[in-house]
Amino acid sequence: MKLAIVFGGESFEHEISIVSAIALKKVVFSELLYIFCDKNRDFYLIPTELINSKRFSSGKYLSDAKLTLKQGGFYYKKLFKEEKVNFDCAINIIHGGDGEDGKIAALFDFFGVPYIGPNIEASVLSYNKFFTKLYAKAVGVKTLDYEVVNKNNKNISLPLPVIIKPLRLGSSIGVSVVKEQKELEYALDVAFEFDDEVLVEPFIENVAEYNIAGCKIGGTIRYSIIEEPQKELILDFDKKYLDFSRTAKVYEARLTEIRHEEIRKNFKLIYEPLFEGAIIRCDFFLIKNSIYLNEINPNPGSLANYLFEEFNSLVQDLARNLPKRRKIAVEYKYINSIQSAKGKA
Amino acid sequence: MKLAIVFGGESFEHEISIVSAIALKKVVFSELLYIFCDKNRDFYLIPTELINSKRFSSGKYLSDAKLTLKQGGFYYKKLFKEEKVNFDCAINIIHGGDGEDGKIAALFDFFGVPYIGPNIEASVLSYNKFFTKLYAKAVGVKTLDYEVVNKNNKNISLPLPVIIKPLRLGSSIGVSVVKEQKELEYALDVAFEFDDEVLVEPFIENVAEYNIAGCKIGGTIRYSIIEEPQKELILDFDKKYLDFSRTAKVYEARLTEIRHEEIRKNFKLIYEPLFEGAIIRCDFFLIKNSIYLNEINPNPGSLANYLFEEFNSLVQDLARNLPKRRKIAVEYKYINSIQSAKGKA
Repeated sequence: MKLAIVFGGESFEHEISIVSAIALKKVVFSELLYIFCDKNRDFYLIPTELINSKRFSSGKYLSDAKLTLKQGGFYYKKLFKEEKVNFDCAINIIHGGDGEDGKIAALFDFFGVPYIGPNIEASVLSYNKFFTKLYAKAVGVKTLDYEVVNKNNKNISLPLPVIIKPLRLGSSIGVSVVKEQKELEYALDVAFEFDDEVLVEPFIENVAEYNIAGCKIGGTIRYSIIEEPQKELILDFDKKYLDFSRTAKVYEARLTEIRHEEIRKNFKLIYEPLFEGAIIRCDFFLIKNSIYLNEINPNPGSLANYLFEEFNSLVQDLARNLPKRRKIAVEYKYINSIQSAKGKA
Repeated sequence: MKLAIVFGGESFEHEISIVSAIALKKVVFSELLYIFCDKNRDFYLIPTELINSKRFSSGKYLSDAKLTLKQGGFYYKKLFKEEKVNFDCAINIIHGGDGEDGKIAALFDFFGVPYIGPNIEASVLSYNKFFTKLYAKAVGVKTLDYEVVNKNNKNISLPLPVIIKPLRLGSSIGVSVVKEQKELEYALDVAFEFDDEVLVEPFIENVAEYNIAGCKIGGTIRYSIIEEPQKELILDFDKKYLDFSRTAKVYEARLTEIRHEEIRKNFKLIYEPLFEGAIIRCDFFLIKNSIYLNEINPNPGSLANYLFEEFNSLVQDLARNLPKRRKIAVEYKYINSIQSAKGKA
């Protein structure tokens, strides 16, 4: 099985995608190809043995083979011919913009590249935190109260403390906790740097958080263990950055069997059928004996490999069991019948 | 102003997209280019003077210049060089799959092609009728009751008559009205031919329907007139097909000023800010003095030109005032700081 890890992207999380991609080398035991999407959205085939974060920051990758995405896959020039980059399945590990907003999914669907990752709908519903709220509620999963504000309407009715998040980013970028009124204006300005719309939620100090990952293979969801992440107030970008390189296994959270099942049940409600084809991580809060969805990571850092007992086989089994895409047969039934009625057929 | 009309696509509505594209020639007085996406999703530059539905059904277009979509736009081979197809703005007039499901929007965003049409989020929220319901409710627009069923769960609690629709298609394809229990199984089978999920809604005979189109330019929504379409039980595909070639102006529905304003208000709630950059048509029902959203057409047939007094200037003004897209600056701040801490910088 030949897997192509697609990483980088025009994204605030471009760098952590590089870290994630490199981490996968330690946990996926398969023939791996690395396809880099640079900040200009040009694709390059990076020799697997040369993969190293410095290659990208230094611009050395520019001497690697440049790729063109066309029907059927990625191609590179070899003398006077074009050669296809052969692989069985791509893994979308672009975090944030391009990777999680539906662009890469759309490109792969359009050009017929099989991939592990969220499809267009799953991307849009998880990337936009307002849509995530609507979706979670509709499938029966609780979320915290919220308000969406924009530059023309910054009125917030929720009592302090609140947490302010750009509506469409991940990885804590642009996120602030506001405990006093005087901090609000600045926190909003920071968030508006990243998005025209901002999500406001109550901030609950020391809330219990549980992370669970999983994916559906052949009709069954394979769940990861449940982790209770140890955290600061909120993970800052530097810490989160290091977090994306995680490959060491973690310990399962101490939970009753009932609580454990409840978290799995909530994960399943979110996952099916929207996220089929992706390995996602859901972060839940436990508040007064109820489970609340905090966020959906449709391309979690290093694919949340550290949460799975058997990550390598999970990836390979998923690659072999991707959701089938409908092929639409285009016929010229109506045009032909009209032409024929006009005597022009 | 040079406009590129992009049409076709791997879509059940491929043919009506051709009809729509040809109709635009009569109502947009600008230099027009025609870019055809064939059923294999290869792009071709069709000479404007040769545009004719037969060119596509006969396969004659295969002798036109084949295009490659790359950073910055569409390119074709000219002797040993590649030439860019120059235009100011593309118009996405692919109906259904590819055009309205987010794929073309994603391709254009990714490759930097300015376009008139729904963005990725707007596409996903209007293409999937379940998401449309969630969105409409959240922005304060009423919709009919509904249920979503799939092949494993075909239980319907809504009383007959109901209308059955594939969750993700437009143009009446796969849609049936079920008045008696015995018709239900077949109607569901028809819909499942097109999608794994199916929307069920109450069917209301002779419901009053009002269509309105519009788009936002420079902070103001320009509304079309409101039409009360004359219809059969539901428009069948043949009629709808002809409907897409409409260019003759229609008469404004007779409505009180209050009702007129109410329909505009509902349109605005749906439109802002999600659909900015697109000319959309919303179809509303009037039931017991209340307005209900029936559906959002983010790429309506021939762009609903027949509803606008000044369609030509609308298109050109919109092309000059597209929403600004954020450019993300990728820097290697973290990798550089880590390299430097390791003494490798």
